[in-house]
Amino acid sequence: MCRWLAYSGSPVRLERLLYEPKHSLIDQSLHSRLGAETTNGDGFGIGWYGVGDAPGVFHSIEPAWNDRNLRELAAHIESPLVFAHIRAATATPVQLTNCHPFRYGGWLWMHNGVIYDLPKVKRDLVLAIDPALYPEIQGSTDSEIFFYLALTLGLEDDPPRAVQDAVGFIEATGRRHGVEHPIQMTVATSNGESIWAFRYASAGQARSLFFSTEVETLRMLYPDDARLQDLGEESRLVVSEPLGSLVGAWNEVPESSWGVIQPGQDELHSFEPTRVSARA
Amino acid sequence: MCRWLAYSGSPVRLERLLYEPKHSLIDQSLHSRLGAETTNGDGFGIGWYGVGDAPGVFHSIEPAWNDRNLRELAAHIESPLVFAHIRAATATPVQLTNCHPFRYGGWLWMHNGVIYDLPKVKRDLVLAIDPALYPEIQGSTDSEIFFYLALTLGLEDDPPRAVQDAVGFIEATGRRHGVEHPIQMTVATSNGESIWAFRYASAGQARSLFFSTEVETLRMLYPDDARLQDLGEESRLVVSEPLGSLVGAWNEVPESSWGVIQPGQDELHSFEPTRVSARA
Amino acid sequence: MCRWLAYSGSPVRLERLLYEPKHSLIDQSLHSRLGAETTNGDGFGIGWYGVGDAPGVFHSIEPAWNDRNLRELAAHIESPLVFAHIRAATATPVQLTNCHPFRYGGWLWMHNGVIYDLPKVKRDLVLAIDPALYPEIQGSTDSEIFFYLALTLGLEDDPPRAVQDAVGFIEATGRRHGVEHPIQMTVATSNGESIWAFRYASAGQARSLFFSTEVETLRMLYPDDARLQDLGEESRLVVSEPLGSLVGAWNEVPESSWGVIQPGQDELHSFEPTRVSARA
Amino acid sequence: MCRWLAYSGSPVRLERLLYEPKHSLIDQSLHSRLGAETTNGDGFGIGWYGVGDAPGVFHSIEPAWNDRNLRELAAHIESPLVFAHIRAATATPVQLTNCHPFRYGGWLWMHNGVIYDLPKVKRDLVLAIDPALYPEIQGSTDSEIFFYLALTLGLEDDPPRAVQDAVGFIEATGRRHGVEHPIQMTVATSNGESIWAFRYASAGQARSLFFSTEVETLRMLYPDDARLQDLGEESRLVVSEPLGSLVGAWNEVPESSWGVIQPGQDELHSFEPTRVSARA
Repeated sequence: MCRWLAYSGSPVRLERLLYEPKHSLIDQSLHSRLGAETTNGDGFGIGWYGVGDAPGVFHSIEPAWNDRNLRELAAHIESPLVFAHIRAATATPVQLTNCHPFRYGGWLWMHNGVIYDLPKVKRDLVLAIDPALYPEIQGSTDSEIFFYLALTLGLEDDPPRAVQDAVGFIEATGRRHGVEHPIQMTVATSNGESIWAFRYASAGQARSLFFSTEVETLRMLYPDDARLQDLGEESRLVVSEPLGSLVGAWNEVPESSWGVIQPGQDELHSFEPTRVSARA
Repeated sequence: MCRWLAYSGSPVRLERLLYEPKHSLIDQSLHSRLGAETTNGDGFGIGWYGVGDAPGVFHSIEPAWNDRNLRELAAHIESPLVFAHIRAATATPVQLTNCHPFRYGGWLWMHNGVIYDLPKVKRDLVLAIDPALYPEIQGSTDSEIFFYLALTLGLEDDPPRAVQDAVGFIEATGRRHGVEHPIQMTVATSNGESIWAFRYASAGQARSLFFSTEVETLRMLYPDDARLQDLGEESRLVVSEPLGSLVGAWNEVPESSWGVIQPGQDELHSFEPTRVSARA
Repeated sequence: MCRWLAYSGSPVRLERLLYEPKHSLIDQSLHSRLGAETTNGDGFGIGWYGVGDAPGVFHSIEPAWNDRNLRELAAHIESPLVFAHIRAATATPVQLTNCHPFRYGGWLWMHNGVIYDLPKVKRDLVLAIDPALYPEIQGSTDSEIFFYLALTLGLEDDPPRAVQDAVGFIEATGRRHGVEHPIQMTVATSNGESIWAFRYASAGQARSLFFSTEVETLRMLYPDDARLQDLGEESRLVVSEPLGSLVGAWNEVPESSWGVIQPGQDELHSFEPTRVSARA
Repeated sequence: MCRWLAYSGSPVRLERLLYEPKHSLIDQSLHSRLGAETTNGDGFGIGWYGVGDAPGVFHSIEPAWNDRNLRELAAHIESPLVFAHIRAATATPVQLTNCHPFRYGGWLWMHNGVIYDLPKVKRDLVLAIDPALYPEIQGSTDSEIFFYLALTLGLEDDPPRAVQDAVGFIEATGRRHGVEHPIQMTVATSNGESIWAFRYASAGQARSLFFSTEVETLRMLYPDDARLQDLGEESRLVVSEPLGSLVGAWNEVPESSWGVIQPGQDELHSFEPTRVSARA
């Protein structure tokens, strides 16, 4: 059910994030260790902030591991804030409009996980989306519906609040339709300045999620590692699975948590879906 | 806005319909004469009845004119009832799930035309679809929504009635949203035995549509044309644009009409959208 | 490095070969057990004899496991002689012209394995191809060059002789360029009546290959298995990995062997590359 | 047979070159006015210098006019030297490895036109390519063979000399095989600093080619045109067909000419294929 990576920090060429680390995200497209599936070959996408007002996105329906265009773009695009996602489709078609990250205005969104029994709940979830946003939906995934629900509920103003509201609504809707554990998720979203990351599952045992240790600490641990010298002090990664092989570089995000990577001090909080009573 | 072809009759290899005639459908993908656009290069699809219970469909997002797989399949599949469609996308993405013909159970559906101002009316149209059918919608086109509306309104029992009801509903919904001329269409649908074809536009001037002259009549006109000798007497084509160059081979379907090609006598009737008062 | 399947016998719908068996070829595209790679997601192809003079082929650059068109075609095409191949690319691009099976006239060809150090030997191998055949080469794989070498050396007249000559030439050419073990292969080729299968590797340890037990014997072993009742007595499968779960259904093709499935008695012989002294 | 555009000057976002002008290159993919074909829908490519040592390339097999990724990249990549090419395939497959611009090391190459009767001459042309370069050929087009011939003949040292030698060799080879008019071409190539452009046809009547008037002159002609104010003075375009609608903005490259756009004074010279006697 997908793997992803979010980076914020000093501008880097994308290949440094996507291809160079041991057990890179591109390796994970063929050989994921911690994912629900070992193969994540049902398309992929990247999103990045840089030239232009809105973030750029590039999507492909081919497996990431041998996509020629991805390798080109990764070698020739530099950015201070990057999202990357490799997909293992659950039930919806492999098509560009179903590839993450999704974009609305200046926001990016990507999701690993699933809204269970989507055919049962899809119509009710879609009906709850702001009619003004409804025509913007392009694909058919649970993940994009989740994004538009969060936008409807105020993502642009207060991301943690909106995501907790959206998950509360998804859980209430699922349970009304007899779905015991309605959602499984890690999510990342960004406005180009901060990255919010979420880890939660209705049944517990949410998909794995890790954030990188502060660069300053890593430099003290590995004073001879040249790769750490040219990273800015605020550089930070959030990933589905640890990359590389530096001991001490990764910290697991606890279950039912959300965090924010931002200018200044990053934060980590507990995640609690808003209790709502979904209308019948 | 697309071109299409529907064939019923003695089993033929698809290439005979798609490639061999002068000004064939595949030619029309590059050089349509009567279409709203000269190029119909935004994907294509074929549907056919034969092996298996339901009809088979093959869709591609590439232009038909140089699709290697289409040429292969056309040379190696034979069928007594064939739909083929080349797309000129209006506003929705070029992806497999947006390619015609659409299939539901044993039914095929294809559309040339447009529901105008789709973003304004889409949500209301989708809400009118039977919730049990809603999860079956795969793509994002107006044409597929039109199909599911017709299914909701009884397509499988009485196709002309259901399509007239669906068009009436689309017109009422559009007008409620300030759309002066809500729909433009030719449509073909089949259950594997009969083909129903429709031509209508809210503003008049519906897309062109032609049906072929009876084989028996053509043989009298062209006693020396070998191609006519091995066609069964009930063989009939309905097309957006005439194929080939036989004078007398094609008859225009009048505006605001529907017809049915069926075992026994074919029929042609006038098409009148059902007057409905769409709820606010 | 790919998996494949070849079938000859009573006409079957392709899905029965490709999707229905436990551990089917489509399963193997995600989870091969015996292959050099577990994932074979770099395109696929099928070839079949039936309608039309030459065999039909269908190729796709997407992974087989969720290709919508493959599922459609498999459900709606029936054939008495079928090739299917899923690819794990070694070094050449994923594109339609690199997908197996390759076709020339009425012949199909597919290959699992590799000509090692292709950049070193490619030019010499291509130079040995009949100049009249040279313009027919469409892609850039070692496997297609191998096919055209075999055609140059008389594949259409004596397949075992031609393949042994071609392998001898490939080995001599490789060794002249310092390649210790020039080739690794299982190959299937057909003219629409017989299927020839080959297993060989310069270094030994050729890729796995199995043929199915005679239907008559299987029926005695499993008198209650309904699936065996409607198979013709001459039905035979050759596969990279056993399908299904019937004990006794599969027999390993010994290393350095070739066999032929044909009307009448099938045959199995030892495979010996022809010793040639490649010109400098 | 394709349309292309080459830009050198102050860094611009690609969309400004590709989408914004009236009758832009993307428009030409659907509606070329001066091309041999009106539709150029058989894939496209862009190449640009910027981040990274070598130029980046992005290729697609879909028509440019509705490629979502191209629109994204054009909006988010900025470069001082850009190649763009839309393809109308003559006889070779539509696949990524057949899309222009081609790249070797720091060089880009694109071609509009054709080497006539390629099946007759391909083998001899390929044999003339430096064996060390031969394994670098990825696709199957005449244009890429032409590029590798030019590289073999010293493109990196003296582009006009190498292209005139290559064309001379192609003409001699063609004529030896009975091809009356062996080549038709406009070509652009670059090392990231200069752009060389060529216009020539064995039969005369070479494909159209235009270069833009100097920015300083345009500013005098159109003192009120805001778009001209932020262009650097050395900005220059070479195109298959004029873009935009400024009278006086475009100058036709004479037949049998080559030019170079470079830091300092640009140049225009006559093009004369080197007379060679191709070996039998």
